[in-house]
Amino acid sequence: MTKKLIAEALGTLILVLFGCGAAVLMGAQIGMTGIALAFGLAIVAAAYGLGAISGAHLNPAVSLGMVLAGRMSVAEFIGYAVAQCVGAVLGALVLFAIASGKADYTLAGNGLGQNGFGPGYLGEYSLTAALIFEAVMTFLFVTVILGATGPEAAPGFAGLAIGLTLAAIHLVGINVTGVSVNPARSFGPALIVGGQAMAQLWVFIVAPLAGGALAGLLYAAGLTRAED
Amino acid sequence: MTKKLIAEALGTLILVLFGCGAAVLMGAQIGMTGIALAFGLAIVAAAYGLGAISGAHLNPAVSLGMVLAGRMSVAEFIGYAVAQCVGAVLGALVLFAIASGKADYTLAGNGLGQNGFGPGYLGEYSLTAALIFEAVMTFLFVTVILGATGPEAAPGFAGLAIGLTLAAIHLVGINVTGVSVNPARSFGPALIVGGQAMAQLWVFIVAPLAGGALAGLLYAAGLTRAED
Amino acid sequence: MTKKLIAEALGTLILVLFGCGAAVLMGAQIGMTGIALAFGLAIVAAAYGLGAISGAHLNPAVSLGMVLAGRMSVAEFIGYAVAQCVGAVLGALVLFAIASGKADYTLAGNGLGQNGFGPGYLGEYSLTAALIFEAVMTFLFVTVILGATGPEAAPGFAGLAIGLTLAAIHLVGINVTGVSVNPARSFGPALIVGGQAMAQLWVFIVAPLAGGALAGLLYAAGLTRAED
Amino acid sequence: MTKKLIAEALGTLILVLFGCGAAVLMGAQIGMTGIALAFGLAIVAAAYGLGAISGAHLNPAVSLGMVLAGRMSVAEFIGYAVAQCVGAVLGALVLFAIASGKADYTLAGNGLGQNGFGPGYLGEYSLTAALIFEAVMTFLFVTVILGATGPEAAPGFAGLAIGLTLAAIHLVGINVTGVSVNPARSFGPALIVGGQAMAQLWVFIVAPLAGGALAGLLYAAGLTRAED
Repeated sequence: MTKKLIAEALGTLILVLFGCGAAVLMGAQIGMTGIALAFGLAIVAAAYGLGAISGAHLNPAVSLGMVLAGRMSVAEFIGYAVAQCVGAVLGALVLFAIASGKADYTLAGNGLGQNGFGPGYLGEYSLTAALIFEAVMTFLFVTVILGATGPEAAPGFAGLAIGLTLAAIHLVGINVTGVSVNPARSFGPALIVGGQAMAQLWVFIVAPLAGGALAGLLYAAGLTRAED
Repeated sequence: MTKKLIAEALGTLILVLFGCGAAVLMGAQIGMTGIALAFGLAIVAAAYGLGAISGAHLNPAVSLGMVLAGRMSVAEFIGYAVAQCVGAVLGALVLFAIASGKADYTLAGNGLGQNGFGPGYLGEYSLTAALIFEAVMTFLFVTVILGATGPEAAPGFAGLAIGLTLAAIHLVGINVTGVSVNPARSFGPALIVGGQAMAQLWVFIVAPLAGGALAGLLYAAGLTRAED
Repeated sequence: MTKKLIAEALGTLILVLFGCGAAVLMGAQIGMTGIALAFGLAIVAAAYGLGAISGAHLNPAVSLGMVLAGRMSVAEFIGYAVAQCVGAVLGALVLFAIASGKADYTLAGNGLGQNGFGPGYLGEYSLTAALIFEAVMTFLFVTVILGATGPEAAPGFAGLAIGLTLAAIHLVGINVTGVSVNPARSFGPALIVGGQAMAQLWVFIVAPLAGGALAGLLYAAGLTRAED
Repeated sequence: MTKKLIAEALGTLILVLFGCGAAVLMGAQIGMTGIALAFGLAIVAAAYGLGAISGAHLNPAVSLGMVLAGRMSVAEFIGYAVAQCVGAVLGALVLFAIASGKADYTLAGNGLGQNGFGPGYLGEYSLTAALIFEAVMTFLFVTVILGATGPEAAPGFAGLAIGLTLAAIHLVGINVTGVSVNPARSFGPALIVGGQAMAQLWVFIVAPLAGGALAGLLYAAGLTRAED
């Protein structure tokens, strides 16, 4: 179990450092297409590098979906979720250390790739839009994950499929919320940035967990599961 | 069969929400390269997440090609096509709900990623160009699909190959028609947007179905089939 | 054999229509990154859709490398090369038909994605640079292809590996020659565009064939071959 | 062993020619997203084309990690590292030959894609940021490589996973150091460009080797290894 928790923490560190790092350090050069690819390819990295150890959930909403789909225990879920949040915070700290090496970087001005919505945040979408986007996208994301890692899935392809799905979700919604679909990914940067990111953090806990839970329940009910 | 129809509806919802969503919500930031990737990676998501249930056609032109290739019954085709159209409409509705959360969004002004051609639509290509593009591209797309999912295909790779092919087709033709090659993908946004999108919808039903049918017939005749 | 020639022609049509099509119809919107992806993903499409029939060489330089590596007969090579050139011309014709559907398109002004070098062609690189680029890149490309399709290669991955390699080569050299590494791909557009494209065509026949031949010879000598 | 050294040299030549070539010849057109893809897809090319011969390390930091993980001898490491550096220099020379074919190219002005940091280099990040970035990223990169090529990894996927991971790392850090994570990749261009690139070269030897060594040691200790 210790190894699994190390893998989840390290994998979530990769997700935050790569994805949020691309946004903070390279956003002006690579644009949102580049940022979307960085988030997606971070999953590919962690899935093939660490997936054989822990399954590379890297995301409490995914782990919750696994619990409700009957593929993980509640005790394991708690350990995974804590490890994911620890990894996300460490990833945000490493990113902060690197970003601080640029003369004009400030935490308040440039942030750490935190999620958000409403006035002053990217496309300035409403809370309702943010909630719908995060809940629906996490539902679809976790449904894809449950299918791609299920007993009838083509072996080996899950890491690519899941990573590229996350890239696609970012291509749809960075303007809306910066794209979370993952409470740990939102928690890491928000803890360090504070302010509005912390005040809005509940959205990125509630909506992804709700979407992931629904995906797990429909899978458990057999509606989105290949095998009978 | 119910499960298959759910999978086709959900998969086509993913295609429309991801692809048209990238265009509507992020087009100004990610450009047509990003939109092309979103459409392609939506297929990857649905293929690996839901393909084991229904085959993830997500497209009446693909299902028609499967019928004419002798790999699907007409009764199944009807169910699939209806489910695909339902999913496309639902995807367009979810997209509309999210897009409406931006203060300056209007359905008339920003649309829902509907297909089109002629004056006022992107590159303003002629009807003839639109028909040729849609028919030829759907023929090639369905030929690739039939080969990549055939008995001599490398197992597991079809989802990636088909998704990346759709991305490439978008890299060629967004200026021409917005790229349909899929009557359901065109139907969903057009139904909600109405107007010119509905008036031009026949092009995106006729041309893709013709292209898909030709691909199925040539495959059935053995001309584009690996096995003898 | 007829089936193989159809597959080679159709696959090379896909390569020219997708790759040159992206350049001609979408270049201003997707830039050279998008064009590079379109060429690479065209290979992915043809490899998984048609590769089980003919091997999807789509390129006389690849087929020549196969001959010299002892994996194809000279008679087959001639058939393949003719089919590839026919497919490339057909692809260029379909592209011309679509492109002509835009009011301000002219063959002289917008071209068909033909290769070139020197004054007036993209980065205006010298003939020497063009020859080195095309010969070295084709040598590396065909070496990768021979290895990725050899007896010790991971089954199924060749199409992705080869397509992504071609995308990378385009990311390096569109400014230099527009990137050929393939006499058929150069022949199709040049035949229709004429003028400078035809006058410079010999470069895109000689250099790729030389590079492909060297790759085949080194492979045959065992220097770049995994098995002993 | 000769074959392995040829494969390592040729593969590292591909890495430098593709990655640095994209930066030097196409940077203004493809931006940092395109450059990142070129570096990543160069790994995909070498891994599937040459990996069956030598494992396609292409990087002394990777080979050092393999040694410390107990998967390679010290004698082999020395041969690999020399071959990698030779290949990187050859790649930089081929790139110089092509780049010189553009009238306004100068080695001093346009460089060869060398790494760096501090005043005058891209984002002008500090030495500390450069050291942290290179050490942490190489640690993560080599950890991913060790896992993706380990006995419990999905067969065949390593080349894609590792290449896409390198692309992601470039999407995070081109502004910081140009991204090395590979002493050979830094050595080739620096040897020819000289000046500041040579003066700063130690950073791109020390930090990647430290990161790669740590990854090897943690893997050897079982902390990041799937099998028990």
